[in-house]
Amino acid sequence: MTMTIDPVDLARALIAAPSVTPATGAVFDVLEAALAPLGFTVERFIDGIEPDGPVENLLAIRAGSGPIHFGFAGHLDVVPPGVGWTGDAFAPEIRGDLLYGRGAVDMKGSIAAFVAAAAATPADAGTVSLIITGDEEGPAIFGTRALMEHMDARGVKPDMIVVGEPTSVNRLGDMVKIGRRGSVNIWIDVPGTQGHVAYPHLADNPIPKLVRILAAIDTVTLDEGTAWFQPSNIEFTDLEVGNGATNVIPASARARLSIRFNDQQKGADLVAMVERIAQDVEPAAKVIGKISGEAFLTPPGALSSLVAEAIRAETGIEADMSTTGGTSDARFLHALCPVVEFGPTNATMHKLDEAVAVEDLHTLTAIYRGILDRAFR
Amino acid sequence: MTMTIDPVDLARALIAAPSVTPATGAVFDVLEAALAPLGFTVERFIDGIEPDGPVENLLAIRAGSGPIHFGFAGHLDVVPPGVGWTGDAFAPEIRGDLLYGRGAVDMKGSIAAFVAAAAATPADAGTVSLIITGDEEGPAIFGTRALMEHMDARGVKPDMIVVGEPTSVNRLGDMVKIGRRGSVNIWIDVPGTQGHVAYPHLADNPIPKLVRILAAIDTVTLDEGTAWFQPSNIEFTDLEVGNGATNVIPASARARLSIRFNDQQKGADLVAMVERIAQDVEPAAKVIGKISGEAFLTPPGALSSLVAEAIRAETGIEADMSTTGGTSDARFLHALCPVVEFGPTNATMHKLDEAVAVEDLHTLTAIYRGILDRAFR
Ligand SMILES: [Zn+2]
Ligand SMILES: [Zn+2]
Repeated sequence: MTMTIDPVDLARALIAAPSVTPATGAVFDVLEAALAPLGFTVERFIDGIEPDGPVENLLAIRAGSGPIHFGFAGHLDVVPPGVGWTGDAFAPEIRGDLLYGRGAVDMKGSIAAFVAAAAATPADAGTVSLIITGDEEGPAIFGTRALMEHMDARGVKPDMIVVGEPTSVNRLGDMVKIGRRGSVNIWIDVPGTQGHVAYPHLADNPIPKLVRILAAIDTVTLDEGTAWFQPSNIEFTDLEVGNGATNVIPASARARLSIRFNDQQKGADLVAMVERIAQDVEPAAKVIGKISGEAFLTPPGALSSLVAEAIRAETGIEADMSTTGGTSDARFLHALCPVVEFGPTNATMHKLDEAVAVEDLHTLTAIYRGILDRAFR
Repeated sequence: MTMTIDPVDLARALIAAPSVTPATGAVFDVLEAALAPLGFTVERFIDGIEPDGPVENLLAIRAGSGPIHFGFAGHLDVVPPGVGWTGDAFAPEIRGDLLYGRGAVDMKGSIAAFVAAAAATPADAGTVSLIITGDEEGPAIFGTRALMEHMDARGVKPDMIVVGEPTSVNRLGDMVKIGRRGSVNIWIDVPGTQGHVAYPHLADNPIPKLVRILAAIDTVTLDEGTAWFQPSNIEFTDLEVGNGATNVIPASARARLSIRFNDQQKGADLVAMVERIAQDVEPAAKVIGKISGEAFLTPPGALSSLVAEAIRAETGIEADMSTTGGTSDARFLHALCPVVEFGPTNATMHKLDEAVAVEDLHTLTAIYRGILDRAFR
């Protein structure tokens, strides 16, 4: 037995519940109300405190008789609307072919489409879960990671996960993400001894040391890329001394790097490499790294094939299997099972007048339905 | 015929006329009142406007029958007293062996000593001039340079000049300055194209270019120094990008250098060299130089010898002929004739409780008197 849910109606209801990150409450009520009649057991919990929380998380499971457990992951929080919308960002409105509203593509539209797909899938075909957080757009400290702890405590472990991020570029179905680069920011602080430029022997200038460190880092080739990833890349993003006095040798100098890296690198190893280079030049140099996420890759295989097949069946499009772009919660979920990301076109995500094509919501529902069918086959 | 002036009384009178740079008025009245009875023709003029002026300048000449024209140069402006003096910075006071007050050593004391020395020197022995500005401690735009234009217009050109800056270090007479290094500040701006670190091919990061420029400059050896000068020295004094966003490649990067250079270098050549290095790496790099002063040297010779002899005769000390330390108005006056600098111990100059030993004022008067005797011999 299946039920029919209109993904456009559900997307409108979700958009109408404002949920700027971190999100709790009403928007989760809307989702729970849609899932409960479909036979899902819904668990919700709130984690974290200001300013990174509170964050609401939702885990919904509908057990099937088949052996396969399919997970769909996403987020109900949205980025702030900003000023300049044609209408009200939280008053969903269809104008022409498009449904407007903050979250239409990132990613209340995808969640609505997946719920509609699950409604149309026989409950006994296989186990379906929704792993939905209220903090993907923010620091993500109390979001998907907390959900994964909750799942671990319940013994919940999908066999494959699709994340509903808006991965399509020009047309729905043209791109699936099978991996993401990792990201780490690194600060290098070189201490020195302040002094007057006329008496350099009484001072110890940190800037030439920082220059030597950066020049050495500039010569590093991390890797040549892989079949699925661009080469890992180091960018210097800031230099800071803050010395207003033209005749003073400063007491310290600081630089900041951002490294986007593929699955041949580990964040901690990159920080250690920078520290080694820095301390070769100045043993007292301090290096601090902040890893936003490790790289992940789900090498093309069963999961990406069935997603590509479902896309091809509904649209005729041959999806590009890509690892480009920023980071997503797939970086965490990848620890559980194969993960790919697929969702609407991303042209308006995080922008004014965010909108999804009404037709695309229906097609996306059909594709998700096709993915479930193939996963449970 | 000579007259007797007590250098301590005159120094007290000069200190009691507050003259934080730029100086005009009362302090010049005090000096003029002391010089007029000695047969000096005194010319005073005020130049410049806020904020670098108004600046008063004074040229006093006593023509002698001998062929030699001896010039004494100095300044009546002082640096601000600052907070924390034991007494009042502008209420001269003798406590123990010391005369306290802003300008006691830098350089109202020297001026008083020179006036006393000139008073004790027969007027017909030779021509004596005092070249006294009200802006040496400030931007010096309307100070000694304006005085030199004035002298040029009058056809006044000394054969030698002693600048009364406090050059002594531990004991009065231990150091004479026969030159000073030049000084130039240079700014390097490297333009780039802002972008996101995840898409470096769409951006153009200026920081690696700036690093390459600075690394190249860091390898430059300007010279090995000379018999009279330390090697010219380049110090990096600031780096500035000002990019708060960790995921953004910045649009520009800036560095600042300070070069202290000897008489083998010219300020403009150094700026051109830095520009060449910068534009080799990035043709669009902008390099701006601000030359504070060129190097000057009065090679040891007649003038430094007679100053050293006068010091030796009064104190028994063998003065060090030095080119160390910061810049002074000698950098301008050097264009006229041989110039050396000699004056009191500089331990308290620009500091709280600036003070000169009363005994040193008398000894300095005798040394200046000895210099005049030897110059006119
Ligand atoms: Zn998203
Ligand atoms: Zn001075």
